[in-house]
Amino acid sequence: MINNNHDPLPSWHEGKVKQRILEFVEQVTTPESEHFVVEEERIATFDNDGTLWVEKPLLAQMAFYKKELLDADVLEDASKIKRAVNWSIRGVKDLGGLTKMLVGYFRAGITTDEYRERVAQWIAKAEHPRYKRKYTELVYQPMQEVLQFFTEHGFTNYIVSGGSANFIRPWADEVYNVPENRIIASSSRTRLSKRDNELAVKLEAMPFSFEYRSGKVLGIERRLAKRPIAAFGNSLGDVEMLRWARTTQQSLCVLIHHTDDVREYKYGPDPRFHFGKSTLKFAQELNWQVVDMKNDWQTLFNFETSSNKEV
Amino acid sequence: MINNNHDPLPSWHEGKVKQRILEFVEQVTTPESEHFVVEEERIATFDNDGTLWVEKPLLAQMAFYKKELLDADVLEDASKIKRAVNWSIRGVKDLGGLTKMLVGYFRAGITTDEYRERVAQWIAKAEHPRYKRKYTELVYQPMQEVLQFFTEHGFTNYIVSGGSANFIRPWADEVYNVPENRIIASSSRTRLSKRDNELAVKLEAMPFSFEYRSGKVLGIERRLAKRPIAAFGNSLGDVEMLRWARTTQQSLCVLIHHTDDVREYKYGPDPRFHFGKSTLKFAQELNWQVVDMKNDWQTLFNFETSSNKEV
Repeated sequence: MINNNHDPLPSWHEGKVKQRILEFVEQVTTPESEHFVVEEERIATFDNDGTLWVEKPLLAQMAFYKKELLDADVLEDASKIKRAVNWSIRGVKDLGGLTKMLVGYFRAGITTDEYRERVAQWIAKAEHPRYKRKYTELVYQPMQEVLQFFTEHGFTNYIVSGGSANFIRPWADEVYNVPENRIIASSSRTRLSKRDNELAVKLEAMPFSFEYRSGKVLGIERRLAKRPIAAFGNSLGDVEMLRWARTTQQSLCVLIHHTDDVREYKYGPDPRFHFGKSTLKFAQELNWQVVDMKNDWQTLFNFETSSNKEV
Repeated sequence: MINNNHDPLPSWHEGKVKQRILEFVEQVTTPESEHFVVEEERIATFDNDGTLWVEKPLLAQMAFYKKELLDADVLEDASKIKRAVNWSIRGVKDLGGLTKMLVGYFRAGITTDEYRERVAQWIAKAEHPRYKRKYTELVYQPMQEVLQFFTEHGFTNYIVSGGSANFIRPWADEVYNVPENRIIASSSRTRLSKRDNELAVKLEAMPFSFEYRSGKVLGIERRLAKRPIAAFGNSLGDVEMLRWARTTQQSLCVLIHHTDDVREYKYGPDPRFHFGKSTLKFAQELNWQVVDMKNDWQTLFNFETSSNKEV
């Protein structure tokens, strides 16, 4: 049945995860089904880094900051930021080098509009070091199919990310078909600047919310006041969100497991030095679907490369 | 032309505010117009208390708290709350009586689901002291018409309120046709409780965000990353939001002025003891539309009472 015209998930190998996704969508969208869910409640939440696109060897947002902070060529006002960085180095002694520079970057007084514009400019050109492709080309084709399949069946898809909302917003609508107001993600504090009688929202060098682990649940609850019925993640940071997805029969909880070191990267879902219950243990106990990238995904990306071929 | 089948705002008297609203919607929805705005950008933001419904003599949310805190009959676990109140009275000496009780109320450990359920139960029965009607009947019919007129023309309406999001959510979809995820409003901190392996989000007795004055702009920016093209408010708390609404020719900024002490309440937009620039001064300088409730609104509510008749 693979790749025929009626398969909504052609990049997925036939297998129990694909079967479960198809079965889930059929159950919640069939009015006669005991698991039927009305459209307004068909909320699906997706982690971003490592779940919808490649997060190795360096998170895209970190690659952006490296470029912004270290490559003076791209800085319109490098000296201003350098001054702020120097200032912050004096003020904030205990933080690491990149953090110090980030503090300086925000203290230099960037507006949310300017920040998103810089992200947009960066992502239009930046190249992933291994694939030599734009980051937005490195979204997983099988997940693109899930997003589209859900949308076609009355779901509302949300991105729930530990990365910055303002880093994701400039490109998520075009790439994922998820608009700005459906990005639930970490954010800095902001303040309203009224200089010259012009209002502008400026970013501050202080966290406002951190959508990681419990923070993902709190962010979803604060924004939607509803539980998702489907949730996708790939790491310990997503465990609470997957547990929060309505835990009745009809909910769909999927963990993407990075098992493919030929076409992508091979790594576990837990951060180094994690000693609590492992993510895979949660997956097992709570009966989540675990995607074995190597064996469940026929195609990884929407382009042809050697690293995209099946092994 | 009033009340014929083609008038989208039949409760409004003919006048310059009504004309401006009609003209605005025509401009931004006519592709040939130089002020045309695509649907995704047709964001309209509405303050709630005093803009969409009656806020005197006491904010509905305060009436709810009074009932919740002072009437033991409605409390399922009154003694638990009383203990928490006593505890908080010892811990928090400088706050007023109601604030102390509120701290106790939240410290007793209410989940967001429980809180919204209590609001839903209260609002289904509570009666406004003057009109002897449910609070949800005290929404302004002229504003209901604006909400609907906007919706019919591809706008997305948001409530932006200094009140609690969780107080507004239980009834806003039914009353305003604005769903849970389009309420941008104040919130308490929350935490994720994992007792008995069941996840629940509990409210804490600490503010998380306060959507008042600049906070309204920051809340809109954080959630939508877009400026509204239309904004409605009635008080100093809305000044920054109205200023933030895109200030080009095509934006619509409306201040509801409570001028009608026969059918409603007569009061100015500024809080007592405010010494900065007055809200009406902002309205004048920035060329906002000011609704004179007494003369611009033909009907106030969607029911017949003496207080609803024209003077």
